[in-house]
Amino acid sequence: MRKEGRLTRWIGWTVVVAGLLLLGFIIGWFAKPTRPNTPNDTASGKYLREFLDEMRPEQIREHLRKFTRLPHLAGTEQNLKYAEQIMKEWKEYGLDSVEMVPYDVLLSYPNKTQPNYISIIDQLGSEVFNTSLAEPVPEGYEDVSNIVPPYSAFSPKGQPEGDLVYVNYGRTEDFFQLERDMGVNATGRIVIVRYGKIFRGNKVKNAMLAGAKGIIMFSDPADYWAAGVQPYPDGWNLPGGGAQRGNVLNLNGAGDPLTPGYPAKEYTYRLSLEDGVGLPKIPVHPIGFHDAINLLKNMGGPIPPNNWKGALNISYRIGPGFTDDFKRQKLRMNIHSNNQITRIYNVIGRIRGALEPDRYVILGGHRDAWVFGGIDPMSGAAVVHETVRSAGRLISKGWRPRRTLIFASWDAEEFGLQGSTEWAEDNAKLLQERAVAYINADSAIEGMYTLRVDCTPSLHTLVYDLTKQIASPEEGEEGVSLYESWHKRDNWTDNRDAPRISKLGSGSDFEAYFIRLGIAAGRARYTKNKKTEQYSSYPVYHSVYETFEVVEKFYDPSFKRLRAVAQVRGGLIFQLADSQLLPLDVNQYADALGKYAQSIAQLGHRHPEEMNTYRVSFDSLFSAVENFTVAARDFHERLHTLNKADPLQLRIVNDQLMYLERAFIDPLGLPGRPFYRHVIFAPSSHNKYAGESFPGIYDALFDIQNSADKQKSWEEVKRQISIAAFTVHAAAMTLTPPA
Amino acid sequence: MRKEGRLTRWIGWTVVVAGLLLLGFIIGWFAKPTRPNTPNDTASGKYLREFLDEMRPEQIREHLRKFTRLPHLAGTEQNLKYAEQIMKEWKEYGLDSVEMVPYDVLLSYPNKTQPNYISIIDQLGSEVFNTSLAEPVPEGYEDVSNIVPPYSAFSPKGQPEGDLVYVNYGRTEDFFQLERDMGVNATGRIVIVRYGKIFRGNKVKNAMLAGAKGIIMFSDPADYWAAGVQPYPDGWNLPGGGAQRGNVLNLNGAGDPLTPGYPAKEYTYRLSLEDGVGLPKIPVHPIGFHDAINLLKNMGGPIPPNNWKGALNISYRIGPGFTDDFKRQKLRMNIHSNNQITRIYNVIGRIRGALEPDRYVILGGHRDAWVFGGIDPMSGAAVVHETVRSAGRLISKGWRPRRTLIFASWDAEEFGLQGSTEWAEDNAKLLQERAVAYINADSAIEGMYTLRVDCTPSLHTLVYDLTKQIASPEEGEEGVSLYESWHKRDNWTDNRDAPRISKLGSGSDFEAYFIRLGIAAGRARYTKNKKTEQYSSYPVYHSVYETFEVVEKFYDPSFKRLRAVAQVRGGLIFQLADSQLLPLDVNQYADALGKYAQSIAQLGHRHPEEMNTYRVSFDSLFSAVENFTVAARDFHERLHTLNKADPLQLRIVNDQLMYLERAFIDPLGLPGRPFYRHVIFAPSSHNKYAGESFPGIYDALFDIQNSADKQKSWEEVKRQISIAAFTVHAAAMTLTPPA
Repeated sequence: MRKEGRLTRWIGWTVVVAGLLLLGFIIGWFAKPTRPNTPNDTASGKYLREFLDEMRPEQIREHLRKFTRLPHLAGTEQNLKYAEQIMKEWKEYGLDSVEMVPYDVLLSYPNKTQPNYISIIDQLGSEVFNTSLAEPVPEGYEDVSNIVPPYSAFSPKGQPEGDLVYVNYGRTEDFFQLERDMGVNATGRIVIVRYGKIFRGNKVKNAMLAGAKGIIMFSDPADYWAAGVQPYPDGWNLPGGGAQRGNVLNLNGAGDPLTPGYPAKEYTYRLSLEDGVGLPKIPVHPIGFHDAINLLKNMGGPIPPNNWKGALNISYRIGPGFTDDFKRQKLRMNIHSNNQITRIYNVIGRIRGALEPDRYVILGGHRDAWVFGGIDPMSGAAVVHETVRSAGRLISKGWRPRRTLIFASWDAEEFGLQGSTEWAEDNAKLLQERAVAYINADSAIEGMYTLRVDCTPSLHTLVYDLTKQIASPEEGEEGVSLYESWHKRDNWTDNRDAPRISKLGSGSDFEAYFIRLGIAAGRARYTKNKKTEQYSSYPVYHSVYETFEVVEKFYDPSFKRLRAVAQVRGGLIFQLADSQLLPLDVNQYADALGKYAQSIAQLGHRHPEEMNTYRVSFDSLFSAVENFTVAARDFHERLHTLNKADPLQLRIVNDQLMYLERAFIDPLGLPGRPFYRHVIFAPSSHNKYAGESFPGIYDALFDIQNSADKQKSWEEVKRQISIAAFTVHAAAMTLTPPA
Repeated sequence: MRKEGRLTRWIGWTVVVAGLLLLGFIIGWFAKPTRPNTPNDTASGKYLREFLDEMRPEQIREHLRKFTRLPHLAGTEQNLKYAEQIMKEWKEYGLDSVEMVPYDVLLSYPNKTQPNYISIIDQLGSEVFNTSLAEPVPEGYEDVSNIVPPYSAFSPKGQPEGDLVYVNYGRTEDFFQLERDMGVNATGRIVIVRYGKIFRGNKVKNAMLAGAKGIIMFSDPADYWAAGVQPYPDGWNLPGGGAQRGNVLNLNGAGDPLTPGYPAKEYTYRLSLEDGVGLPKIPVHPIGFHDAINLLKNMGGPIPPNNWKGALNISYRIGPGFTDDFKRQKLRMNIHSNNQITRIYNVIGRIRGALEPDRYVILGGHRDAWVFGGIDPMSGAAVVHETVRSAGRLISKGWRPRRTLIFASWDAEEFGLQGSTEWAEDNAKLLQERAVAYINADSAIEGMYTLRVDCTPSLHTLVYDLTKQIASPEEGEEGVSLYESWHKRDNWTDNRDAPRISKLGSGSDFEAYFIRLGIAAGRARYTKNKKTEQYSSYPVYHSVYETFEVVEKFYDPSFKRLRAVAQVRGGLIFQLADSQLLPLDVNQYADALGKYAQSIAQLGHRHPEEMNTYRVSFDSLFSAVENFTVAARDFHERLHTLNKADPLQLRIVNDQLMYLERAFIDPLGLPGRPFYRHVIFAPSSHNKYAGESFPGIYDALFDIQNSADKQKSWEEVKRQISIAAFTVHAAAMTLTPPA
């Protein structure tokens, strides 16, 4: 009995102990999360606020001041020094790694002992007028050496002589009009065109196609002078002695002209100069309007239509050549610039991603400047610098983004986006597989009115969400968000009630990332009021007058606009790098495709009879867009049931989001432009700065008007419609469940 | 005191209870895995054994019997019927989904009312001899209709007349020898060449380049007759009335000739026939050796060297034309075949991956046959069928692979790999981002000796490991592994003490996957003894005598060889789809690159003076390979410390493994071959069947020998070395830690 009692008691105790252990076990089991803790979006949101708030106007001012004291043209010692300083400071700010990445690319410089200029010569060949050899140096910079005079980079050497022909902006349509309506031929002549409307390289190409033997570009006050504003230093207008530097290449995305498709390293094979990509074959030179008056004032020939007339007090006659009294005078260009292979330096900094180190979010902008780069690019570089500083502060507080952040200070952007393109070529495989997004950081300000954003459609929603979390930098708008301020000033009326966002064109370093590799991309800057301010870019663009002071005195005295731009650019990369689910909106892409398809079809339907004759239809494109739209909607639907706690499920969906932009890439490229591979977006063939949607179809349709073989031209339209339809279908497929 | 005692006791109990709960909690916490249970490699190993053991010789026999009763040429009703049957059976076997995927591609058929043949004509144009219009039908198949007579698919129509010139195998070197050493010109003549050594399309291209107006190909017993073997049906040799069908395209990977780069769908733009890719411009026709004797026996001209002589009892004179007595006789080809756009059908089956549905492992092989397809391709298709059946059995037992398995029955392989290439084009984006590997399943047997494997270097280790787990099918080798049996018969003596594995060339459906998209790929089949059996492919290749019986009676009466091949192909996809860590060996790739670099440099160093003159060096390539080798070694080192329990860490490393092959792809393609994009491997430009390593460099070096402009040719060699070096460096980068 006693034994039994003890046994019972023993059993009782054992049961109790076992029960307690089991209970504990169960609690332990279920208390433990099924995966390692990951920063959730709430924590990420808190850090975003800190990240944005850490950015300071006075810091941006200081960065800008520091990096605009001396000219730092690509390939010069000073630009390397700034690179070293950036590298040093990024390390100090706390990046995990910062490296200098050199390439040896083709650059172009004026000959120091034989200056470039343009002469009017008499019948004996004597120079009766010469254009100026340099811009008057702005006060405060008198002792600065190494200011490169205005020149057209990559102009071949040459001293062509001939009669002048004035061709307005040198656009495709201007040359058409010249030849067809005015009956003037540019062949064998030197053409003079005004800067503006389109990329200067396109003007040069048009002049070459028209058979010109040289081309001069000038800044007309109609295009580089804002009403009621003083010229620099009393205001931000371009003085008459100022001129716009710039490269005149037609690279179409090739990067270094001698190593298309491959990075320009020590061992890389280089084409000969004759075979180099996009190098102009005729001399080119830029002048200011003081000089232009002298070249233009005595011109003869017909009076042009009003839209060919600028704001100078001359008649803008077409030529060829001068009026009766000056008939025997001719023009001579004297160009002695050299192309030379030169070492350039990108600075690449990284913050390693905590959970997905193999996913990259890139913030890149260039460092090289034509002279001081007060606006272009240092207003952008200062913003990047401040973004790095702020990110470093967060790191020191224990934050680390989910994905890897890459910061880039590109070199030789001004010579054809070379630093960024060579690095893209060097890292193409990694980027193709791993890059989530590329945010560009060129000039952060070009006006004093409101925000300007160009980006891929899938970023629209993020841009809107983010700008609602940023304050307007405008005086009197305390408590107003950047979104509201922007919305009020630039509503996207025809499309929707939201601030306008435009397509990406080219002309800055995002090109290789977006158009060649298919990485979601965007850019943001502060801009002018496009409706009231008609001038091109900003007046002092690429002149010696782009100083620190032009920003400090006129564009952004409080540096709050630059701070707002920093917060937009920085906020974008923060959210892209740190959100659990990638903040890319596939429905927005579907909407955009729908609009682009409508608009390209409208262009086709301008030729209803021919479309009928050659049996051209846009149906396959519309059907593909419809298919994409359904796939996008279903994709977003499925997101509601996504188990974000499952790291693989999350990764799979994020991969679909990341690779969507890649799906629009056709490795075969656009006709004649092998490095423009994005089927939805490309720089216009007629103006590199402008973005064209469905560029393959657009170009084929454009060719219709001057086609001798209509059948063949319409066949090309059909081929391009078919490629576009296929690409949109293929992109839709990437959004469906993966198996 | 009593109260205190009770309190003490209470506290005591509380501590004990809390302690027990805590202990349980701790056990529970740590007992729980940090992530959802995933099939581990041990479980996977058990299933692999079951999967291999489930494959049955008698089942393979039955599959083969079933699908070889009737001719099933691509584009015919019977081939669609077999597709439907396969779809139905794959569904029954238990695949998650099976779909039929059609494309409309360019095929070529003889004209049913106007047969193709070749005549000897007299001076009046009368036919004095005509080649046969069909092969004698094998016994048992007398009542079968729709046997297509021997023809060269895609030959243009035409009735060229002229003198015959005999050019041995029609290789590049044969035409060189003809013109240089023998002083005979093929221009304006009809050339006759024997089948063998190289792909027939290359022969046709060479004849076109030599200016021939037509080309005849015949099967010489020297190349299609094994010593001591009877002709079919008493043995497996080719009867004298048998002839080899085949396409004579030079597609270079384009797929459908009218839709290069894009899938041939309803809406797809089609090139005109004149612009189609790779279509021959001169009539082509194949004959057997009975007919060949009649064309060749009276030929005049020089006696050729011995290596130009086949095994027929004739003198193999070169021509042009016939000997004295027959001088006035000429040859006339009568070709009336039609090219026509025809619907073809791929069958695509899927098993959804349990954890990574967005990772694809593909087993694909074609279904279309020239006639019955006893060997080509149904011995392979039967093996795929058995693999699907076995996988279905596993599914029914609860197994599901980690990654998605895709099974494909391709159509129109015989017409230029069209079904597989169109599907690759259709799904290019998905495949690029998600495909782990492609295993090819064409003919599973071409000899009775041992295993033959061609694959990418990173699969070598898996092939060796796997074949050690498979039994030798040879009689008297019970208990011997396939690896041992294979090793004994075909040791890779010069490289290492292991069975020989060769490079992939082309000539089957892996081409678009491996050479265009850069997906790790391999193929396996049973083969002859290459040292003792000199004939080309297998004698009855592409003739009507490729029946079920030729396999059942001669090649594999026990069907154990086919089972072994099924186990190799099936085992490969099983391991690739189910292993936690992808079974790809990066060190093997490094070794292979080292060997290829050595061998291409040796080829260059055959011209030591010129290499010196034009400053050509392979140093950059060797340095890149060294860099890759270090990166590969470090990568495998890091695998030791990989935390496989962390799904993201595992995925990141697997992505590096998966994307390695992709890193060798250059979107610009090889010179003149835009769809051959793999920088390390491509089909030889001189023989599509052969694989060339560093093909860009190889072709540039090959051109040196006949170059008129040595400087230019060596520049191309340098350019190609630079591209290869860059690509290998870029691939090495993908193996380094991702950030």
